[in-house]
Amino acid sequence: MKLEVARILVRDPAKNRATVGAVPAEVFTTDWEQLVNDPKVDIVVELIGGTNRAFDIVAAALRAGKPVVTGNKALLAERGVELFELSRQTNTPIHFEAAVAGGIPIIRTLQDSFIGNRILSFSGIINGTSNYMLGRMTDAGLTFEEALAEAQELGYAEADPTLDVNGWDAAHKAILLASLAYGFPIDPAAIHVSGIEKVTPLDIKFAKSLGYVIKLLAVIREQDNGAVEIRVQPSFVSESHILASVHGVFNAIAVHGDTAGESMFYGRGAGQNPTASSVVGDLVEAARGVTEGRHRGFLPYKEQGVLLPVEETTTGYYVRFDVVDKPGVLAQIATVLAEHGVSLSGTHSPADSTNPDAAFRDVIFLTHRCPYGQLQGALEEIDRMEDVNKQPVVFRIETLS
Amino acid sequence: MKLEVARILVRDPAKNRATVGAVPAEVFTTDWEQLVNDPKVDIVVELIGGTNRAFDIVAAALRAGKPVVTGNKALLAERGVELFELSRQTNTPIHFEAAVAGGIPIIRTLQDSFIGNRILSFSGIINGTSNYMLGRMTDAGLTFEEALAEAQELGYAEADPTLDVNGWDAAHKAILLASLAYGFPIDPAAIHVSGIEKVTPLDIKFAKSLGYVIKLLAVIREQDNGAVEIRVQPSFVSESHILASVHGVFNAIAVHGDTAGESMFYGRGAGQNPTASSVVGDLVEAARGVTEGRHRGFLPYKEQGVLLPVEETTTGYYVRFDVVDKPGVLAQIATVLAEHGVSLSGTHSPADSTNPDAAFRDVIFLTHRCPYGQLQGALEEIDRMEDVNKQPVVFRIETLS
Repeated sequence: MKLEVARILVRDPAKNRATVGAVPAEVFTTDWEQLVNDPKVDIVVELIGGTNRAFDIVAAALRAGKPVVTGNKALLAERGVELFELSRQTNTPIHFEAAVAGGIPIIRTLQDSFIGNRILSFSGIINGTSNYMLGRMTDAGLTFEEALAEAQELGYAEADPTLDVNGWDAAHKAILLASLAYGFPIDPAAIHVSGIEKVTPLDIKFAKSLGYVIKLLAVIREQDNGAVEIRVQPSFVSESHILASVHGVFNAIAVHGDTAGESMFYGRGAGQNPTASSVVGDLVEAARGVTEGRHRGFLPYKEQGVLLPVEETTTGYYVRFDVVDKPGVLAQIATVLAEHGVSLSGTHSPADSTNPDAAFRDVIFLTHRCPYGQLQGALEEIDRMEDVNKQPVVFRIETLS
Repeated sequence: MKLEVARILVRDPAKNRATVGAVPAEVFTTDWEQLVNDPKVDIVVELIGGTNRAFDIVAAALRAGKPVVTGNKALLAERGVELFELSRQTNTPIHFEAAVAGGIPIIRTLQDSFIGNRILSFSGIINGTSNYMLGRMTDAGLTFEEALAEAQELGYAEADPTLDVNGWDAAHKAILLASLAYGFPIDPAAIHVSGIEKVTPLDIKFAKSLGYVIKLLAVIREQDNGAVEIRVQPSFVSESHILASVHGVFNAIAVHGDTAGESMFYGRGAGQNPTASSVVGDLVEAARGVTEGRHRGFLPYKEQGVLLPVEETTTGYYVRFDVVDKPGVLAQIATVLAEHGVSLSGTHSPADSTNPDAAFRDVIFLTHRCPYGQLQGALEEIDRMEDVNKQPVVFRIETLS
């Protein structure tokens, strides 16, 4: 099989590129319709990013019956419902390995190798920037702002790092994974996403003393009743779990299949080369489809699926309150928690709190597993108590198989 | 696509099986030639193990143009050259995902997802029994014999655990991985294999104090000149490397591809369900091939490849000597090592040696990277020294990317 680069769409053909010499100048075009409609073009690789022009190009390619290879997670998470529907109608596949976790072949694994599995859950570290920053906050005691500045200097974070630190880059990937595993379109607005902006060195230190590390985790889990839980947030992960050993900008996705059992796929989640690895793998698959005259790899969609409301998602919790240091406050908080059915696995009132002589001090409650709605109810009531200073800090404690 | 179980080959059709009720009794046969030649059989799944009858069945299926799915690593490692040649001649594929690391889809990943990568190296923990035993020796201080007895009680080790503990089960898998990545037949007799029988709690303890864990590692690495290094042995792995976090009976394979960068695939390496997961994935691939009238997944063989002789394989080393505790012995050993070009990164003479009052004591040398042949030369000379008691204990210190 021999692949030929027939057309390259660019904004400015005069720009000096690494491809100079490797590709004839006449291959470049600024006209996307010309590219898509060129009869020499059999497969369209979309790597321009964004969700508008990219949508037009991918949709036009599918309508022309040309398989698409893309690494555009935002496009597929935001407008995947339309595009995958079009893919089915036109019997033309979209390959998107590069859209989830860069060089890690998780999409192909789900579509092919794990075809005999019902996927019970995913737990993924799928934003390298956040993972790098949390690592530096943990190992070097940096603040969020310092870690972000460093990540930007090293080129790990974009000039606009919003989607990395607010959790939405990870959420886009989680939406794609869940769509693939459970086969229904997922509305981004319906899932629960929080980022690492509120993680502090103080909570990282407390986590460590309790045997945990804080990781930005995407959790996807099918409930027994078929409802699917999808959420992204910084979470407590036991330091003995293999996900705790995922350092730096690496990504990892733990998959629990009913027959394969627990698996984990680890690798570089971003960057030119890892992305290229996935694009080339997809390109060969697409080319085989063209050669063989039939394609593989369609998303098996059912019309409707059910997402588990965030109030019903169930984990343990780490809750840190800033309270007036006087007798009875702990008892009051514990009573309210108990009244809402939130039972405690431990309380800690660290001696090395950052403000040992102040009137306020940190009190940490660790809870057993309960629905998030129950905890919320308790926290709203506690928030009205005089002796509790401000909004408590809450992290989920994940039970990972 | 609907798959039907047409025939099941068994020794004793009267035996009570979990399949009773699920499969009609007339499906069972004791005649393998009848099974292979049955026109209703399109694909043959070989899960009987062994290398003789299994060879006959797989070869006959290929000659009949029926794709084979197998989990038989010993068969493919020992007689793969013949079978893969037959596969090419008959244009009939052998799928063998289940033969390497049970439920981990490493074969498919290499054949499809990483098709755009040159594989620079593998480092794998691919024998769950050994990994479980080393873990128990590390965490609970068990001896090799105690750990083996426990593994057998728990059903993790076979009644005859020879191939698990002598490294050859891992070596069979390494041979398959290397054949796949580098495309030439590999003679099992030419590769360097040692097992975990000689690992002691003492060396595990010293390793730990130096920041390492001992893992049975299969290492495959292509040299710049194209020669391929393949070896299996217990090795020192930095405790901060992700492979050090692979516990219990889990398997993991770290893959370094030139474009994907470092990846790791982790999961259950054995057991009925993980094996079934891989067999079903392969069965679907084989069935697609039958349906589409063309197959994928042949081994790309070149006639000849070059294996790196073990003398030229290069790592650091941990060498523990048992010496007479008198002045000058360390200096003598260090001098011989230096004369053979083996340079030291550290020496340790642990205070908590197991025999502090004895005339003999442990002395540990850590070396920089050098070819194994150089170290061997030095050790042969040191072995002739009067004040050195017995054969030194040698472990490789792996530099993993």
